[in-house]
Amino acid sequence: MTGRPHIAIDAMGGDEGVRIMMAGVAQARRRHDGLRFSLFGDEARIRAALENHPNLKAASTIIHCDGIVDGSDKPSAALRKANSTSMGLAIRAVKSGEAGAAVSAGNTGALMAMAKVALRTMPGIDRPALAALLPTLGANDVVMLDLGANTECDSRNLVQFAVMGAAYARALMDLDRPRVRLLNIGTEELKGTDEIRDAAAILRAATTLKMQFDGFTEGDKIGSGETDVIVSDGFSGNVALKTAEGTARFVTDLLRRAFTSSVRSKIGFLISKPAMHLLKHHLDPNVHNGAVFLGLNGVVVKSHGSADATGVANAVHVAARLLEADITRRITDDMANVSAGVQAESLTQ
Amino acid sequence: MTGRPHIAIDAMGGDEGVRIMMAGVAQARRRHDGLRFSLFGDEARIRAALENHPNLKAASTIIHCDGIVDGSDKPSAALRKANSTSMGLAIRAVKSGEAGAAVSAGNTGALMAMAKVALRTMPGIDRPALAALLPTLGANDVVMLDLGANTECDSRNLVQFAVMGAAYARALMDLDRPRVRLLNIGTEELKGTDEIRDAAAILRAATTLKMQFDGFTEGDKIGSGETDVIVSDGFSGNVALKTAEGTARFVTDLLRRAFTSSVRSKIGFLISKPAMHLLKHHLDPNVHNGAVFLGLNGVVVKSHGSADATGVANAVHVAARLLEADITRRITDDMANVSAGVQAESLTQ
Repeated sequence: MTGRPHIAIDAMGGDEGVRIMMAGVAQARRRHDGLRFSLFGDEARIRAALENHPNLKAASTIIHCDGIVDGSDKPSAALRKANSTSMGLAIRAVKSGEAGAAVSAGNTGALMAMAKVALRTMPGIDRPALAALLPTLGANDVVMLDLGANTECDSRNLVQFAVMGAAYARALMDLDRPRVRLLNIGTEELKGTDEIRDAAAILRAATTLKMQFDGFTEGDKIGSGETDVIVSDGFSGNVALKTAEGTARFVTDLLRRAFTSSVRSKIGFLISKPAMHLLKHHLDPNVHNGAVFLGLNGVVVKSHGSADATGVANAVHVAARLLEADITRRITDDMANVSAGVQAESLTQ
Repeated sequence: MTGRPHIAIDAMGGDEGVRIMMAGVAQARRRHDGLRFSLFGDEARIRAALENHPNLKAASTIIHCDGIVDGSDKPSAALRKANSTSMGLAIRAVKSGEAGAAVSAGNTGALMAMAKVALRTMPGIDRPALAALLPTLGANDVVMLDLGANTECDSRNLVQFAVMGAAYARALMDLDRPRVRLLNIGTEELKGTDEIRDAAAILRAATTLKMQFDGFTEGDKIGSGETDVIVSDGFSGNVALKTAEGTARFVTDLLRRAFTSSVRSKIGFLISKPAMHLLKHHLDPNVHNGAVFLGLNGVVVKSHGSADATGVANAVHVAARLLEADITRRITDDMANVSAGVQAESLTQ
């Protein structure tokens, strides 16, 4: 990419306030030398928060605005105030080219609507998808998409998501040929919907892509570490993501109950606290914070509303890595390869 | 229901062999006084296994057959040998009325195909659904369906699944008005596909049903205990079920690693063993073994291939409870109420 990475920050979005947002951005700034920021929101509050972070203050420009997108705002309502809110202005900075990426911890639906309208989808991409990293038992995390941007998807969408997910995995995890699978309800070729089977056929044929397409996977293999990118429609992906979150919480709740069920268990718990700490670290959503809308002309990262400073720093880190890796160009190149592969396939049939 | 419950057992289906199947059925027999069994499979092996279980021997008839449905058999291949296999003959016993229910631990796809062809769907039901109980943090388990019998579903299917799931919850959990929700990717009325929104509208209108329809739920609330029946298409349901299984295994694997990471942790683990045992019990799939094909003219229960004797006993228990509760009649009555509710709704529009 050309020039130094510049990121637009919606300072007002998080549940935890401006102070946590600024602490997180400052933490990310220390990991990425040369990053610059435009901070959108209430100037007085941003200025106060920056007093604790001279390194960030030196690398930032504050752009004051009064408007805020509320958590309960419908996307249509948020769109109407795109030009006066910290979220809308942060995205506009990406559109104008002033910033390469925007990070917000605000209302997801509003962010997606604003980003789609302002940035438009990239050439060759019909719809953007929401992607995130999930923990695995393997050496790397797994990229999963779509996590809820598109309720229904056709085979074209799924193929595009696979290409975008693979580009994301190469950028963030330094993999040469990420292993890609489609989420399905069985691994046999005949399983699933027409859309999934057609997408698999296209991906199998497109052999020039920078990915290793391994067919289908199932919900119980998401965290196994055997796949780098898992592709699904937004409905199933959202169900899988939330079911995984809910089940992890369910098991840790059971664990807490078990450990407080007797004096003996309580003592055992105290002794094994370092072990429990390790577990908590693995399941901590802040470690995996930062979901990306892939497929737009510009990078937009959603930080979780309840993220702490480390979580915000991880979301900014994701944005910075995607800028450094020039994700948009990578996806464009790969989409050309899909078309070439599909054409070759058509010619031989 | 009329007469004593009589259950047909496919003795050959489980990965663990005839001996475990018979031990499980014998255990179930002790919970349900008066149950009778037809045992289908290799007579010599069944007879040998029964030597340890005089109570079951006294309540059973053995029907010898040589054929076995293999784990790798495609449904079409299994259908061709329906009349010579232990699975096919067990289902035929339900069709002829000799038995009220069949239990098999064999190939799920084959069992579903055979059951659909032999038993047909009930009047008013377009497609059968696969239902199972999952653990929750609340007082009761939650019934979830469809878990994979139908890849795509329309609103009619979803409404029928809701009715069948509620009847199942009333039968197995003695609930008067089970709380029913549709699985979705948000709880607002506008979320999800047309099929889900239309199903919600029909269920909201059908106020005479013996259920409390509470709208939508999300993947992270499946185990929360706030819902008794969760309804989804077979694709999302299968993804959710497998993701929950995979995540529970993921967390317990992490836990094992954490507990063996240091001497201190190992000591803590030994001391808290009773607590870990409690956790294991909650997550043990044998406790929740027994998925049911609802909507057929007869009860067909799938026991997990790897279930132990307690797991098999639970699957047989599910079959016995559904027979005792006359599930088929309950569903027929409720379907009449849906139609009445929907007609009333149409008249007022």
